[in-house]
Amino acid sequence: MRTTQEILRCAKAASRSLSTLTTAQKNAALTAMADSLVAHTDDILAANREDVAAAEGSISPVMMDRLTLTAARIEGMAQGIREVAALPDPVGRELSSTVHGKGMIIRKVAVPIGVVAIIYESRPNVTSDAAALTLKSGNVCVLRGGKEAYRSAAAIVAALREGLAQVGISPDMVGLIEDTTRASANELMRAEGLVDLLIPRGGAGLIRACVENATVPCIQTGTGICHVYVDKAADLAMAVDILDNAKMSRPSVCNAAEICLVHKDIAADFLPMLKARLCDPAREHSAELRLDAAAAAIIDGTPANEADFDTEFLDYILAVRVVADVEEAIAHIAAHSTMHSEAIITADAATAARFTAAVDSAAVYVNVSTRFTDGGEFGLGCEMGISTQKMHARGPMGLEELTTYKYVITGDGQTR
Amino acid sequence: MRTTQEILRCAKAASRSLSTLTTAQKNAALTAMADSLVAHTDDILAANREDVAAAEGSISPVMMDRLTLTAARIEGMAQGIREVAALPDPVGRELSSTVHGKGMIIRKVAVPIGVVAIIYESRPNVTSDAAALTLKSGNVCVLRGGKEAYRSAAAIVAALREGLAQVGISPDMVGLIEDTTRASANELMRAEGLVDLLIPRGGAGLIRACVENATVPCIQTGTGICHVYVDKAADLAMAVDILDNAKMSRPSVCNAAEICLVHKDIAADFLPMLKARLCDPAREHSAELRLDAAAAAIIDGTPANEADFDTEFLDYILAVRVVADVEEAIAHIAAHSTMHSEAIITADAATAARFTAAVDSAAVYVNVSTRFTDGGEFGLGCEMGISTQKMHARGPMGLEELTTYKYVITGDGQTR
Repeated sequence: MRTTQEILRCAKAASRSLSTLTTAQKNAALTAMADSLVAHTDDILAANREDVAAAEGSISPVMMDRLTLTAARIEGMAQGIREVAALPDPVGRELSSTVHGKGMIIRKVAVPIGVVAIIYESRPNVTSDAAALTLKSGNVCVLRGGKEAYRSAAAIVAALREGLAQVGISPDMVGLIEDTTRASANELMRAEGLVDLLIPRGGAGLIRACVENATVPCIQTGTGICHVYVDKAADLAMAVDILDNAKMSRPSVCNAAEICLVHKDIAADFLPMLKARLCDPAREHSAELRLDAAAAAIIDGTPANEADFDTEFLDYILAVRVVADVEEAIAHIAAHSTMHSEAIITADAATAARFTAAVDSAAVYVNVSTRFTDGGEFGLGCEMGISTQKMHARGPMGLEELTTYKYVITGDGQTR
Repeated sequence: MRTTQEILRCAKAASRSLSTLTTAQKNAALTAMADSLVAHTDDILAANREDVAAAEGSISPVMMDRLTLTAARIEGMAQGIREVAALPDPVGRELSSTVHGKGMIIRKVAVPIGVVAIIYESRPNVTSDAAALTLKSGNVCVLRGGKEAYRSAAAIVAALREGLAQVGISPDMVGLIEDTTRASANELMRAEGLVDLLIPRGGAGLIRACVENATVPCIQTGTGICHVYVDKAADLAMAVDILDNAKMSRPSVCNAAEICLVHKDIAADFLPMLKARLCDPAREHSAELRLDAAAAAIIDGTPANEADFDTEFLDYILAVRVVADVEEAIAHIAAHSTMHSEAIITADAATAARFTAAVDSAAVYVNVSTRFTDGGEFGLGCEMGISTQKMHARGPMGLEELTTYKYVITGDGQTR
């Protein structure tokens, strides 16, 4: 087994050459990676079958579905890589340019970050997505996946590295950490000088461990306790449609709504409409509503406890609270949100403006479902994750968010 | 004494209202702060005299000069605040705007970061500069200055807060930490939920403590081990002028050069020229050269030890090493630089292009002195510090670098 340190040293060395590759070289590499992935479909499926067999009985059906690969899914992963090749190159963009009074030119230019380490869980497609996005942005990736998907990830990375070698690019551009114990995650968090950015993609425990322990720069992603506030001036039918979409269309994702805040003046009208739609027994999945005392006085449901307003359910569960006005909604969100996505439903422009100005989240919606917080939907063309912090990148991270910049100053002998 | 927690809670509460102030309100506040500072000149000078008296004998003459205020210096601080008022407002800028296929508008808008804590040392003018820059960018500042300048900082902050109150803005927009022991610095580093960004401005020990201990986002600033590489294709007279400026014009600042790398082919010609200029005994300050073996074979000087190539001298000392070519210079910089500012002196465009592409520092210069790395020189109008990290902000931080962004999405019922 190669140690994590060895893999990181190879990654750092590869990053020096990768940062100066041309767009054409990077796109040729991406195409070769996609082709190699498809060519190795049998190997990848064989490895995946071992992972699936080993996981049988120990993970949930949803996780098992995420873990399981098919030839079509591998083709989809390859297609994803080809789509990244078609995106604009984020490296080398001139962000600004000024001529100093003494005559030298000061250019601010987008450059790669360097070595980007990604800690993720069991979805094998993250392996190829992350490799494609980091390569296109001139970065080297070091992947540290979950134990239960290790054989699949190793087969995918072997195929990607073979593709890189075919076009004469260092295979160390895509590294896979071989140690899947917690020790390697901790090592990545403290690999100063070797890891330029760590992106933890996973549950609250992983994010918390990174905040506590990391000495390398981190971008926190993915935890979404998203709120929908139904104002007294809301179109109530629209509000029901948006909550249906935000809560029920895909509850396992981070941009799904978890909490509904309802203005007291329309609660008696709105809550029965909401219950009729979300809890309709004729639906395939019916929602459980967890109600504060004021909501429980209007409709039936489970009594909410305080923890329900701080929980990312990722399930067909919605916590409901009645608030006095938009200010109380804003204060509740400030106290309980993970700063991912929040929505207001209102026909009142002044109330909407107050909400969007005061709510300090990555995405703030007016009369739109929170489910749109996504790199593809926001026009970024792709997504490495959704940042819930304020430094560097906020919301969906695309290729530009995987770059930094430097100033390049050219002159003919200027001194200060 | 107010506890650090109390001050931070007040700051967080103030940040909610500050983020929605208009440009006119912020500029009126800045003008009031400047006027109040001048009006309280006598109080500030009295407090400063106490600091100076207490510090007598325990700090260096340079530090004593930095600590000592005069009426003219206070007027200069007020003028600095007025200049910040005249700069464009960085908040509310529309960074991008797209219309989604379903019709809603997705706007990316610059917003304040929130509570910005700044740990700094003894220069009283940092107190007013930091307060002005954070207010203009819609942020609340929490200042934690050095013990030896505490009375001065407290008098300055009292004047600034009085100015804020006069125009009806919460004085808690400018907070001063009253505990000047290490405990308060550690508290700021771990004040999750209360501090949105911590900017340590100080020596390597402070920066190191932040890297090790901080759980809040930090921007490392200021440590500069800057290199000047004199290529074989350099104009040697230009190279001497640039090194004279980069090393000798103000050695105590972070953009001063510490290391000179010299191509072996021109070392025999160049090093005597360098020594004649920098070590001229007729100068007010003459440099000490710390030479590697190859340089010492050409000119006299102090033998360099390995640590000299990893030291921010901040003094009239220059370490000199002879290298085989630009690649060895690039490799040396990668191993020893703090990623602040580096320069190449060369007339060869291809060598210059290789150097600027491969050197991974905030500012990379071709035939220009490193001394220009500065917010004012780069056209930012001001500066909060010089970031030596890659995330969020790199190089000089101006008002824009003190903002983050959010997405504001407005529609009429869109669901996904």
